[in-house]
Amino acid sequence: MTTYHQATVADADTALRAADACFDEFRSLPPARRAELLEEIALGIEALGEELIETAHRETALPMARLQGERARTCNQARMFAKLILDGTWLDARIDHGDPERQPLPKPDVRLMMQPLGPVVVFGASNFPLAISVAGTDTVSALAAGCPVIVKAHSAHPQTCALVAGAIKAAVAKLGLPAGVFAMFHGSGRDIGMALVKHPLTCAVTFTGSLLGGRAIYDAACARPQPIPFYGEMSSINPVFLLPDALAERAEKIAATFLTSLTMGVGQFCTNPGVIIGVDGPDWRNFLTESSNLVKLWQPATMLHGGICDAYCAGVERFSQLPGVTVLATSAAAPGDAQAAAILFGVSAVDFLARHEFDEEVFGPASVAVTCRDTADLLAVVESLDGQLSASIHGTAGDLLKHARLVRILERKAGRIIFNGYATGIEVCHAMHHGGPYPATTHAYFTSIGSAAIRRFVRPVCYQDFPDDALPAAIQEGNPTRAWRLVDGKMADC
Amino acid sequence: MTTYHQATVADADTALRAADACFDEFRSLPPARRAELLEEIALGIEALGEELIETAHRETALPMARLQGERARTCNQARMFAKLILDGTWLDARIDHGDPERQPLPKPDVRLMMQPLGPVVVFGASNFPLAISVAGTDTVSALAAGCPVIVKAHSAHPQTCALVAGAIKAAVAKLGLPAGVFAMFHGSGRDIGMALVKHPLTCAVTFTGSLLGGRAIYDAACARPQPIPFYGEMSSINPVFLLPDALAERAEKIAATFLTSLTMGVGQFCTNPGVIIGVDGPDWRNFLTESSNLVKLWQPATMLHGGICDAYCAGVERFSQLPGVTVLATSAAAPGDAQAAAILFGVSAVDFLARHEFDEEVFGPASVAVTCRDTADLLAVVESLDGQLSASIHGTAGDLLKHARLVRILERKAGRIIFNGYATGIEVCHAMHHGGPYPATTHAYFTSIGSAAIRRFVRPVCYQDFPDDALPAAIQEGNPTRAWRLVDGKMADC
Repeated sequence: MTTYHQATVADADTALRAADACFDEFRSLPPARRAELLEEIALGIEALGEELIETAHRETALPMARLQGERARTCNQARMFAKLILDGTWLDARIDHGDPERQPLPKPDVRLMMQPLGPVVVFGASNFPLAISVAGTDTVSALAAGCPVIVKAHSAHPQTCALVAGAIKAAVAKLGLPAGVFAMFHGSGRDIGMALVKHPLTCAVTFTGSLLGGRAIYDAACARPQPIPFYGEMSSINPVFLLPDALAERAEKIAATFLTSLTMGVGQFCTNPGVIIGVDGPDWRNFLTESSNLVKLWQPATMLHGGICDAYCAGVERFSQLPGVTVLATSAAAPGDAQAAAILFGVSAVDFLARHEFDEEVFGPASVAVTCRDTADLLAVVESLDGQLSASIHGTAGDLLKHARLVRILERKAGRIIFNGYATGIEVCHAMHHGGPYPATTHAYFTSIGSAAIRRFVRPVCYQDFPDDALPAAIQEGNPTRAWRLVDGKMADC
Repeated sequence: MTTYHQATVADADTALRAADACFDEFRSLPPARRAELLEEIALGIEALGEELIETAHRETALPMARLQGERARTCNQARMFAKLILDGTWLDARIDHGDPERQPLPKPDVRLMMQPLGPVVVFGASNFPLAISVAGTDTVSALAAGCPVIVKAHSAHPQTCALVAGAIKAAVAKLGLPAGVFAMFHGSGRDIGMALVKHPLTCAVTFTGSLLGGRAIYDAACARPQPIPFYGEMSSINPVFLLPDALAERAEKIAATFLTSLTMGVGQFCTNPGVIIGVDGPDWRNFLTESSNLVKLWQPATMLHGGICDAYCAGVERFSQLPGVTVLATSAAAPGDAQAAAILFGVSAVDFLARHEFDEEVFGPASVAVTCRDTADLLAVVESLDGQLSASIHGTAGDLLKHARLVRILERKAGRIIFNGYATGIEVCHAMHHGGPYPATTHAYFTSIGSAAIRRFVRPVCYQDFPDDALPAAIQEGNPTRAWRLVDGKMADC
């Protein structure tokens, strides 16, 4: 087995100094040059070919087809940000023209655009070894913004990380950019991670992982003498609501799609459906029976690593012990080493509401079916939930109109509301939001997936009464970059 | 002297429950109704007439003319947000159309817009008893977004607060809105403030004030079981750079405008110029001589309250004791009770760089003139600075081009860079940014002044595969509100 240099605090310091030293050069490049870097990174990852897929498969146990799909998503993301920064609209440029004649005081000329923050520290996720790891959305959106990136590799897939880091470094070198633009460290202890978070030159931190780990880093980022933004994507149980007319129409079909979502990637998605809620009656019971049958048939599968499997088993055990909880079904086949069986728990709304523990994510193919007596129960359940990345509603158009209150409550709880679908298999696009109130994330304004993810790495800088030729191009009067801008309060691209 | 009910923890709980209970009704109002509320608040404040100005004058010692101007700004701000929300562009609506035929997987229809957070707690500032207090920019931008507001009144101007709160409550009642939309509390201790920050129903907190006070609330907001966004605007010394050609051209004129900015509002502005930096030579010395003469002539004036004056005197004393610091000039007339004398300190760049204490804001009409040996010194001084709300550069167009590096560094330090002007007398507009890296604010992405201030109180909510008639109007296919939206990655208003 290959061993990797375990980074030291001195390594972190060296990398952050190098990142800081090249930040001005990197952010001052024409956007086309940073776009070129992102394109080159995508090509480099593709050029790693089957070695990357096989390595990731060996390290994560994820199926080859899934990893191939994830590689495509990873490269597409890099290309999406390359395209995004060529069109300056993401800079949120704003211009308010001055008026020297205004009474009682002259009106200044005020212009604003986004500027990058500086060196960004990225903690790679374990569950997406490509798309939310070394060259994942955090890294490519930070590079797109003009921020150098230092990745703390996830210790569960070090060789995959090393291969991808090699591709990024080669792209940086090929384009003649300073090496400080990108660095990656291995290190399984807390020391290296905390050293990166606490370093005075670190300007922002991203993280995708557990609530426990995320909260510890959040606390450290907030406790710094100079606090910095920490963007943690942590814990969500992604409730699924089944409304009456849909259940009457297609309970079996919903059971089948629910099982697909529940077991996708062995349940190891931030968007996994951890709780499913319906009102008691023959259709709901039909759904429970169908789902239970499918759970029993589901073959146990290997999880990302032993630690995740242990945590899953502990979570399943914890839920089993809660008052009023029954096991509706579990995989008939016994799980092997580091394998997870699927499990569907049942609980009444009354018992669910009696305890907050059901809001704790169990990462893996487990879900809790909550049986409500009526719509009031269902609304009480949704009111009781913590912040979520997503919530799904299965219903007819009529169901949705009749349950407008459910949607209103979910708008306060979740970052994304899905109709007749599931949160797994997220679309990477401009309107996507992968974020939500705590504990889903640490700041619900920001997303870690989709083109708006770049917002995490910029802040507005306002220029007052500057001569036109001393302004950045995006806010010069003639709009040389042809970006959409808010000019005197109106959108304009001229 | 009127006494006010000192709010209890129970009062805070009652108000937050009422705010939470009416949040859905309030946020679901057509924007025109909330705009009407803001207009009504402006009219109500105007209708308070001279009583308001006289009360504020008595409580703050600020001149009547200044308070009249501040009242106009306060009402204009409310009207600006009323106008803003009638045009849906602030919702940042985004639409990515679906494609059921896409291979290998259908593409979902994904739409996003901003939704308000919920009840917001506002800590009023002492230095703007109208514009950053009870009906200040925090309150009106939160109401515009659809968030109920609970204000913790500043104890230095309780009657002014009570008058304005009365106007807001009357507007709420006149429009038939639930009373929970707005509440205000008096209370001089920490208890009531901390109870508001820690209450589980509070969704965001804003604050304008000292670093010490702001940091304490920030720490409490971050340490909550469910952390919430805290937007603190705290400490900035707003450096002013005088470049050689401008000094050669107009040192005396700059000295005059500098003194006006330094002493405006008895120096009690977040944007007060606390440090002024130039390269040694006859023109710089000429500037120092002229400034010193003007400082001597400046008549001591009464500060907002005794506590602020004590803190000012302590800060002046602290600076006086720092190695290498000389007093270049101070007001010739002796200050009376609660009055501040202006003071100009001098220090070499070498001594300035030797200590971090110069970065600590002294709130009042004091500034430190830093004499650099050369441009390298000047750049070292700017590199050493903490995060700032603003920085100003006085120069010719040629100076600015020759000092491009200065601008590059300031882009990393400050939220606003002003050419040939000062940060005091801020313009309230769309392109304004009143924010900056810590300790200027706690999150540099957000502004507390200008129309973008509304961003602090919203977060994106994404709707996937919703039927058109179940979507909020702003993201329905036909664009009934005619807002600008990002449709499939392109801006469009149709």
